[in-house]
Amino acid sequence: MHKHGGDIYRNVGVIDYSANINPGGLPEAVIEAAIQGVRYSTHYPDVECEKLREHIAIEEGVPADYIRCGNGAADIIFSLVIALKPKRALLPAPSFYEYEQALRAMDCQVEYFYLKEEEGFVPGEDLIDAIKPGIDMMFICNPNNPTGVLLDKDYLKRLLDKCQSCGTYMILDECFNDLIEEPDKYTCKEYLAGNDRLLILKAFTKLYAMPGLRLGYGLCSDKAVFDKMKEVSQPWSVSIPAQMAGIAALKEKEYVLSTKADIKKEKARLVEGLKDLGLKVYGYGANYIFFKARPGFHNECLDRKIMVRNCGNYEGLEEGYYRIAVRGAEDNDVLLKVFEEILK
Amino acid sequence: MHKHGGDIYRNVGVIDYSANINPGGLPEAVIEAAIQGVRYSTHYPDVECEKLREHIAIEEGVPADYIRCGNGAADIIFSLVIALKPKRALLPAPSFYEYEQALRAMDCQVEYFYLKEEEGFVPGEDLIDAIKPGIDMMFICNPNNPTGVLLDKDYLKRLLDKCQSCGTYMILDECFNDLIEEPDKYTCKEYLAGNDRLLILKAFTKLYAMPGLRLGYGLCSDKAVFDKMKEVSQPWSVSIPAQMAGIAALKEKEYVLSTKADIKKEKARLVEGLKDLGLKVYGYGANYIFFKARPGFHNECLDRKIMVRNCGNYEGLEEGYYRIAVRGAEDNDVLLKVFEEILK
Repeated sequence: MHKHGGDIYRNVGVIDYSANINPGGLPEAVIEAAIQGVRYSTHYPDVECEKLREHIAIEEGVPADYIRCGNGAADIIFSLVIALKPKRALLPAPSFYEYEQALRAMDCQVEYFYLKEEEGFVPGEDLIDAIKPGIDMMFICNPNNPTGVLLDKDYLKRLLDKCQSCGTYMILDECFNDLIEEPDKYTCKEYLAGNDRLLILKAFTKLYAMPGLRLGYGLCSDKAVFDKMKEVSQPWSVSIPAQMAGIAALKEKEYVLSTKADIKKEKARLVEGLKDLGLKVYGYGANYIFFKARPGFHNECLDRKIMVRNCGNYEGLEEGYYRIAVRGAEDNDVLLKVFEEILK
Repeated sequence: MHKHGGDIYRNVGVIDYSANINPGGLPEAVIEAAIQGVRYSTHYPDVECEKLREHIAIEEGVPADYIRCGNGAADIIFSLVIALKPKRALLPAPSFYEYEQALRAMDCQVEYFYLKEEEGFVPGEDLIDAIKPGIDMMFICNPNNPTGVLLDKDYLKRLLDKCQSCGTYMILDECFNDLIEEPDKYTCKEYLAGNDRLLILKAFTKLYAMPGLRLGYGLCSDKAVFDKMKEVSQPWSVSIPAQMAGIAALKEKEYVLSTKADIKKEKARLVEGLKDLGLKVYGYGANYIFFKARPGFHNECLDRKIMVRNCGNYEGLEEGYYRIAVRGAEDNDVLLKVFEEILK
């Protein structure tokens, strides 16, 4: 089975750099809202997530019927693939494992577009050329997970145009968009209207540090897609604590600004520190950094109670690639010290 | 789309008899555990639900590896069907709608076994005869939802033997088993070991009145079934509040005893009341009662702020069949008064 980051249950007492969560932690008002949600949980959740969708609609500047909420973004990925039943799909590699998992669950033929190390894992015209009629679906993550590589909007628009003309669903994962310094410069949500082959994935998980509550959503202008997803999904997938936490989270403007400023500062320090240690650093478009070190480096870190994400099990990567989240200053001091100990 | 019970979001201010939830409400210790879970939700959930499964294993008297937890029992239904990809399935009708929904999501050919009103919706030898090689899966719910009809263990064992011999997966929904007066008399979990075609569904939803938190599980002795389900499901489907609430719920022995005593008393009063009003009552094996009244009766109730479950949209039923949950004495007084007003 594919191993994920964030397994603190079988790695007790570590500093967890393997899960890309906002180091600001869960905002207190979000905790309070989720607690209210717990007290209300003698009821079934609202199957329509009506209030939550109204709030997301305002935040995203899209109509509420462009939004479908799920039990984390992963739930949207799975229900989407089950609904659309693609026969052939194209996946950049490396990328987030759940795309492939969902496609294989539906016996879809998966083709990889291998991102090249010598090009810094940045896709070019060759990815656009690889979209052809007969490819029913493609996934693309911006910034990519685990590489951290950011793609600009013009490039994505050309990719989208190619997808539209080939009848290919373009599933654009923007789960880390809100953690980019200038999210508006990168999001493609302005292309939703008028493009029936574009679906954007978003999550509350990373920005509001609430992975344990499970809340994500999809954005799409084609009602038929959501109707099909509704047909193939249980009605109660989003818990009441998650729905209420989501509404509260969207009010946390100050939290977002201040934690993003902290992340920016700490990220710069970590990138510099890694480079100073002679490590090759690739992308760091959001709140995580992708780099190369020697094989087994993650185990040397774990021995010192630092858990980094070993990316050796991603399709398109080999042992020796790692991802770390940006955490708070104190933890990052420890991390840099440990890295230095190991490498010097 | 199929309409479910429990939609208090678009029916504000009603007494909700449409969702079959323990009227005792969420036990305070379970609320406290879920709140602790909220505070811990800056972490990803344990993908293995390890601690929760250990506790369920003790409670159910089965090995922990016989257990798979999900985001409500509905999550188990869907991932099971996606994993096993049955081509032909047999469904008693009427029964819980999500069986059919999950099967249709996977383009399975669904055949109905119609339960007969004149036989009190009780299946007999004819259902056992209907299982044949080529039927890949069948669902059966005990007590059945919505009819409330209880099947005895000997009958289910013969059904299981037939399923085993035909290679048919028998998905036995025991989500209401713990709300039967004598659960042990009816559960088939003793047949799990040695039967690789039996999967039992269980939920925390009903007994502990926590539908908003989403927690259910499946029991099966065949590791291959759970391995396949794991392959086709997101890893983080069970939230941290749900996992922690589940562990706390299993300690609520006194709550279970006292609420079941209340339900028993109130159920007897409601059944008698309904019969006195000339209504035909069918099953009431758990905490709900299935009965017949005139078409449109649910709307007459709703006008008086009582929401009953209109069962007219179940396959195998027509307008005029209804289901009510057993609630507390005060609510039940109101219900009986309203029913009398309408019918007299």
